[in-house]
Amino acid sequence: MKTIPHKIYLSEDEMPRQYYNLRADMKKKPAPMLHPGTLKPVTAADLEPVFCKELVRQELDETTPYFDIPGEILDFYKIFRPSPLIRAYNLEQALNTPAKIYYKFEGNNTSGSHKLNSAAAQVYYAKAEGIKALTTETGAGQWGTALAEACAYFEMPLTVYMVKGSYEQKPFRKTIMQTFGAEIVPSPSDTTEVGRAMQKKFPNTSGSLGCAISEAIERAVSSPGARYVLGSVLNQVLLHQSIIGLETETAFAKIGDYPDVIVGCTGGGSNLGGLIAPFMRDKLLGKKDIDIIAVEPKSCPSLTRGKFAYDFCDTGKLTPLAKMYTLGSGFIPARDHAGGLRYHGMSPIISELYAAGQLRAKAYKQTEVFAAATLFARVEQILPAPESAHAILGAIDMAKKCRQSGEAKTILFGLSGTGNFDLAAYEQYQNGTMVDAVPTDADIKESLKTLPKV
Amino acid sequence: MKTIPHKIYLSEDEMPRQYYNLRADMKKKPAPMLHPGTLKPVTAADLEPVFCKELVRQELDETTPYFDIPGEILDFYKIFRPSPLIRAYNLEQALNTPAKIYYKFEGNNTSGSHKLNSAAAQVYYAKAEGIKALTTETGAGQWGTALAEACAYFEMPLTVYMVKGSYEQKPFRKTIMQTFGAEIVPSPSDTTEVGRAMQKKFPNTSGSLGCAISEAIERAVSSPGARYVLGSVLNQVLLHQSIIGLETETAFAKIGDYPDVIVGCTGGGSNLGGLIAPFMRDKLLGKKDIDIIAVEPKSCPSLTRGKFAYDFCDTGKLTPLAKMYTLGSGFIPARDHAGGLRYHGMSPIISELYAAGQLRAKAYKQTEVFAAATLFARVEQILPAPESAHAILGAIDMAKKCRQSGEAKTILFGLSGTGNFDLAAYEQYQNGTMVDAVPTDADIKESLKTLPKV
Repeated sequence: MKTIPHKIYLSEDEMPRQYYNLRADMKKKPAPMLHPGTLKPVTAADLEPVFCKELVRQELDETTPYFDIPGEILDFYKIFRPSPLIRAYNLEQALNTPAKIYYKFEGNNTSGSHKLNSAAAQVYYAKAEGIKALTTETGAGQWGTALAEACAYFEMPLTVYMVKGSYEQKPFRKTIMQTFGAEIVPSPSDTTEVGRAMQKKFPNTSGSLGCAISEAIERAVSSPGARYVLGSVLNQVLLHQSIIGLETETAFAKIGDYPDVIVGCTGGGSNLGGLIAPFMRDKLLGKKDIDIIAVEPKSCPSLTRGKFAYDFCDTGKLTPLAKMYTLGSGFIPARDHAGGLRYHGMSPIISELYAAGQLRAKAYKQTEVFAAATLFARVEQILPAPESAHAILGAIDMAKKCRQSGEAKTILFGLSGTGNFDLAAYEQYQNGTMVDAVPTDADIKESLKTLPKV
Repeated sequence: MKTIPHKIYLSEDEMPRQYYNLRADMKKKPAPMLHPGTLKPVTAADLEPVFCKELVRQELDETTPYFDIPGEILDFYKIFRPSPLIRAYNLEQALNTPAKIYYKFEGNNTSGSHKLNSAAAQVYYAKAEGIKALTTETGAGQWGTALAEACAYFEMPLTVYMVKGSYEQKPFRKTIMQTFGAEIVPSPSDTTEVGRAMQKKFPNTSGSLGCAISEAIERAVSSPGARYVLGSVLNQVLLHQSIIGLETETAFAKIGDYPDVIVGCTGGGSNLGGLIAPFMRDKLLGKKDIDIIAVEPKSCPSLTRGKFAYDFCDTGKLTPLAKMYTLGSGFIPARDHAGGLRYHGMSPIISELYAAGQLRAKAYKQTEVFAAATLFARVEQILPAPESAHAILGAIDMAKKCRQSGEAKTILFGLSGTGNFDLAAYEQYQNGTMVDAVPTDADIKESLKTLPKV
């Protein structure tokens, strides 16, 4: 038998030329987003003041299975894609498992995560429509960094509202975005009405993601020619992220294998949704039987303990309502270092698939996640992002089951990013000060009271 | 004409199977190192209490052109190698140059630099000889991180003496080394006689690289079964780093091109020495005419303003003497963020080639280096290490000359690492507080008085 190399790279010729829209093959489509005032399904006209037209079209189109990737986006992708599919030989050995473990590594770019895939697309479409500037918010900083990187490439002015607490505690994230030419505004700021009101009410606040979203949207709709962009949850974002799964599918075909199990971490759902897209298609069409596992933190368990209901996408209650697994838009997750997974809701696509039993979910505590991350770093020599380490632990658990059962299953997981900017969290883990805070049933019950009545 | 892809990857089958020893093809060999007590050329017996036997053999062998790379090292390399040769299409466009610019990117690993190439080899050889533990020192942290990563892979205990100032100011470097399982000791420490004496004499010192080297060597020679390892300057290190150049040579052959100009940054010389190895062979053998340029910081100009003389490799004057371009082992470079280039001396191999006119040298100020780094990040989407950015600026200058002359030269430079852990420096550059301190002639004259009389 031919040895499978450690890293399976595609050539640039083998890169996908189209995004795949998983909704086209879902019999039960995700429920439509609702206008927060009228409670009627949102229309293109509702969304176009906020998002550029092509992205609105992609957001609302649930029947077209494939969207051509414009050549300009492909050219940008060639700088950091195709990303490698890696055979985790050393992890397999460390676990003494008969399972074959593969991971798709999306951290091989300066922003350090999969977020750049959608940032590239969103900036390009905005540029092509003559949009003059973009705004967004960032909490942990992964999305802001990716967007700043894409804006540098396409020469698009960008303003990032960064939660003031992060702005002060994560100065390196600010610096890297500034290196790419972005303007960074600590939120709340005096550049918007929302921000000024917040500062007046809470002079010492360190800000919140909800407030930063509100400021970014206000700045976009009040600036001629500007638009707002968002890095997860939305259908358009999962569409762009399908490039992860499509490349993975091609790489598996090259080595004559196919995953029995797929594991991904989920915050808003863009990483998992992108990774599984073509595999879920095969599953929905009855061609393959795959065990698909979404992994989330116990501190923010939207799939495993949330409710499937209409809710706001932001804590400021400004956005349309989405039907999704949610802990309530007022849910404040306990301190957890997987900042990208601290989201009260979940992509409507992932939510609908979960409700239909097409994927299952698991939740882990952060200390066990960091133990898995440390093992992985030592044997596979990549320092994983805390978010991605949730998927590592999920894959390790499945590989251990294979050791018990003797099954040589093929396990695929998504390594969505690196932990180079998360070393304060690793430090906490090492010195024993990391705690596992898990919401009580009463906490979640209370938070779910914030659900809108629809 | 066939389009050259952005990234030229080799397959694992195409990876070099041997290191190349450039000394074998140098008519005038580098002068031998001298024992600091007897001033006679060092022998294997002198070195073996400090270094493991195979590394001593490699250090002293100036005639064997190729050394087989053991399979265990190759297996390790497959985790992060082959590294890509990248065509800088976007930089070419930004500079409007007819030149073709390529860079060999060595930052695609968690340690973030080329240092891992030699760390892998040194740890393997020590392990194979039954060495029980390793010690080293680290200043900026690149070498320590690479060595910790390699020690995690080969399960070798490691103690890193980290300059106390860095230990306190760069806690993330400490954390990443600890994640890989290394013991980190701030230097000066009370674990060695040298350290205790230093603490007694200077109770408030923040340490120095010289003292950290002395402590690491003392710890190695006083611990049964332990050895010391070093990340640059030595012949053995340049031998291991030849894998950079050998891969580059193969990649150029695949696309039917060959460099007219090669640019690399130089601190101790391991990155430049590795990158140019097979190309310098072609030049020495009269097969090719290549313009080879070593770039150093104006703050620490060993090639451009130093003296070619025997000197100590460390400020503590404990090591053998090497004949090299040096500013004097007592030279204290001005504040400069390219920590890896702040070395008073230079690899004896590079020094001998420079003395023979086989390569030329240029020095830049750090603010102009960071301007080049920022441009590069925006168009090529990789945040370069401050060290590597010296090579970027060197390549940009050559590409601009091509724009003036209309020549479509092929320019290769080494992108030896990423700047993910150097964002404090980028911040200084952005807020205008970065200064360019350059030693005066009197400073250098004074420092050269520390040269030993040989």
